[in-house]
Amino acid sequence: MKIPPVKGMRDFYPADMAVRNWMIDGWKRISLRNGFEEYDGPIFEYLKMFQIKSGGEIVEQLFSLKDRGGRELAIRPEITPTLARMINQQISSLPRPIKWFSVPRLCRAERPQRGRLREFFQWNVDIIGVDDVLADAETIFCALDYLQEVGLTPNDIVVKISSRKMLAAILESIGIPQGELEPLYAVLDKRSRLPQEAFEEILAKQVGDENKRNKIMKLMAVESIEQISSLLELSKTAQESVDELGRLFELLDIMGVGDYCVFDIGIVRGLAYYTGIVYEIYDKGSELRAIGGGGRYDDLLKQFGGPDIPATGFGIGDCILGILLEEKGLVKKQLPIRQPDYFVATTDKQLFQKAIEIMTKLRRAGLAANFDYKSTNLSKQLKQASAQKAQKCIIIGEEFNNNQLVVKDMATGEQKLVDINKFFAELKPQSK
Amino acid sequence: MKIPPVKGMRDFYPADMAVRNWMIDGWKRISLRNGFEEYDGPIFEYLKMFQIKSGGEIVEQLFSLKDRGGRELAIRPEITPTLARMINQQISSLPRPIKWFSVPRLCRAERPQRGRLREFFQWNVDIIGVDDVLADAETIFCALDYLQEVGLTPNDIVVKISSRKMLAAILESIGIPQGELEPLYAVLDKRSRLPQEAFEEILAKQVGDENKRNKIMKLMAVESIEQISSLLELSKTAQESVDELGRLFELLDIMGVGDYCVFDIGIVRGLAYYTGIVYEIYDKGSELRAIGGGGRYDDLLKQFGGPDIPATGFGIGDCILGILLEEKGLVKKQLPIRQPDYFVATTDKQLFQKAIEIMTKLRRAGLAANFDYKSTNLSKQLKQASAQKAQKCIIIGEEFNNNQLVVKDMATGEQKLVDINKFFAELKPQSK
Repeated sequence: MKIPPVKGMRDFYPADMAVRNWMIDGWKRISLRNGFEEYDGPIFEYLKMFQIKSGGEIVEQLFSLKDRGGRELAIRPEITPTLARMINQQISSLPRPIKWFSVPRLCRAERPQRGRLREFFQWNVDIIGVDDVLADAETIFCALDYLQEVGLTPNDIVVKISSRKMLAAILESIGIPQGELEPLYAVLDKRSRLPQEAFEEILAKQVGDENKRNKIMKLMAVESIEQISSLLELSKTAQESVDELGRLFELLDIMGVGDYCVFDIGIVRGLAYYTGIVYEIYDKGSELRAIGGGGRYDDLLKQFGGPDIPATGFGIGDCILGILLEEKGLVKKQLPIRQPDYFVATTDKQLFQKAIEIMTKLRRAGLAANFDYKSTNLSKQLKQASAQKAQKCIIIGEEFNNNQLVVKDMATGEQKLVDINKFFAELKPQSK
Repeated sequence: MKIPPVKGMRDFYPADMAVRNWMIDGWKRISLRNGFEEYDGPIFEYLKMFQIKSGGEIVEQLFSLKDRGGRELAIRPEITPTLARMINQQISSLPRPIKWFSVPRLCRAERPQRGRLREFFQWNVDIIGVDDVLADAETIFCALDYLQEVGLTPNDIVVKISSRKMLAAILESIGIPQGELEPLYAVLDKRSRLPQEAFEEILAKQVGDENKRNKIMKLMAVESIEQISSLLELSKTAQESVDELGRLFELLDIMGVGDYCVFDIGIVRGLAYYTGIVYEIYDKGSELRAIGGGGRYDDLLKQFGGPDIPATGFGIGDCILGILLEEKGLVKKQLPIRQPDYFVATTDKQLFQKAIEIMTKLRRAGLAANFDYKSTNLSKQLKQASAQKAQKCIIIGEEFNNNQLVVKDMATGEQKLVDINKFFAELKPQSK
């Protein structure tokens, strides 16, 4: 009986797994040096947890299931609700600020397409307990610390930044009631992905008043923070959030990543929980969807039954980023090559037992060592050693009767005789 | 709205995550040095895939779900069926032997109890394409290479080994029809976990004939391979598998792990797909369930629609092993301590900007660097540095006007003035 894989899910054969590991190891290393600690939650949570505040698109894409008691569960489509739950559970004992990261496996029941799969890995970095825009700057820096590290320059990618707080203040001053902001965000979030006409059509459905609509269209066309002030008189809240945006760009300059960052009022974000700075990271050259994005979500912990604590963070998935890094040739260039330290070969079936003994001793000493199960003829074994990119080959032959091994350097071809006791005494202890 | 976590699922707070990472990193390192390559599959597969050959207990414990097209899926309760599917898909292009490992996240709808959770991680190591018992020995060695590495001695753990092929041959010679072997295995597998009476009861249900039953009871009471031959006359197949078991123990001796291994005819394994050598690893001292187990499953790939290829491997979960390592004090002893390289402090709010600049430069250079968001007074910052176990503290004070930094060694308390340009010029490049 032949059973196919489920569509939109990935099999990671060793070559694919090497790429996934390389990417995730990089995320982890960069997170740690930026002072973040790793956490993780369960693969599924109660269904209702994702229905609270994740936004319509994500809720539609949930894989839901039931446990034996009939309780409704869902495979996590994002980790932020889990983060909020976990923080709330231990809020009194966690020293603040809380700087955490995670690399969750997530599932969304999307229609599979290029860069959009039903299962993916997402790098999440969050700072809980700091309301200063410095925390937003630090998370953006952390994302760019990684992206820069793997070779993406300001010519390749851009971080587009705006502020939901500013947008809310301006939309309110235009006359949009607070209760209508959330559905309007969902509309504005689609603007860059739709033709102008289609966008105007859905906007008209959301905002009936033509005058208001025109003001919104003008607002969404501004290209700099300065333009906003000249376009309309700003309320106190709007001015504060404009100033905050200004300070964010200043901080990003000080951090040395300013040339990756631009203001873009079109960045609204689909998720319902954002409250302040919002941003998305894009590939400059292509038609790809956002590489990642994030922002401030100061109300989420409270909405999950916790105290009123500010929070900010981002998520970067592995699919779009993987495509981009492949396209730029950056994976091939940086993927570590696996090279076993030793291949143990024998010239004689009688010595096979010795080969096994030596191979396992090498492994116990922390070295990667391989062998040929069949101990076929020597040239076949050497071919195998070379196919496996072994650095050295130990040949156990008649010299073994004098307690000697032949050690062959596979790069230079150089061979030398080594006393077996001396060989093991001199093995460098491998770092763990 | 406060939503609880799902019962039997784990939250990994940073302290828990550190333990999980330490364990999994060890599994990966040991697998690689034993010549295995990492793979992974999707978190769910078609439901029917797990119904083919996994055995009743696992099928009952499936978390099943449906996709939007109504197709029946299940979260993977084990990875071997996925492995069989993946190998079959690329069988013609994969060089053999295939030596693969994986650390899948798995879910089973069990009643949560100590060491038995609904979600866990399992180290899986498999060799496909070698029918020689040497491959069984190598996988057992690999498991012990790890267990020995983390400090478990033959006084702590034991690998109990038997052979399903031998058991099948003997049971057939006792007069059990081949078609009744599989349900009988399930009964025999429960023997060590049941009181003698309860076991005899379920055995009587499975085997009606008292004479056969008595022979089975006698067989299950043998304590050595030699005893079997004296108990009854062995068929050719039975003799072959007895010899094979003998050779396995010889190989394990050569590999230096013989003192961890014993013959135990009670090891049958619950899964339906085993065909040859089977084994389970136990804690000697406690009442814990098996740490892990495995064996040969030569027919599985064929049953999954592939060619006839021999295979052998094991799985070790993180729950029981974690409890054992904690009990023995081996986690605390070995868990790596995180120490940021630098904490950047300022004596003056005016210099805060410089602190951010220097901190981000350190991170870009590959060093872990932290700071205080509020740049409160110096002694508070130094306290924070020490709470975070920072190795060094950079203090930016009035010396900064002469381009100098104060670098304080947090262990010795020693402070020195360093020219800022010299400091960055001399930073050691960090290995990735």
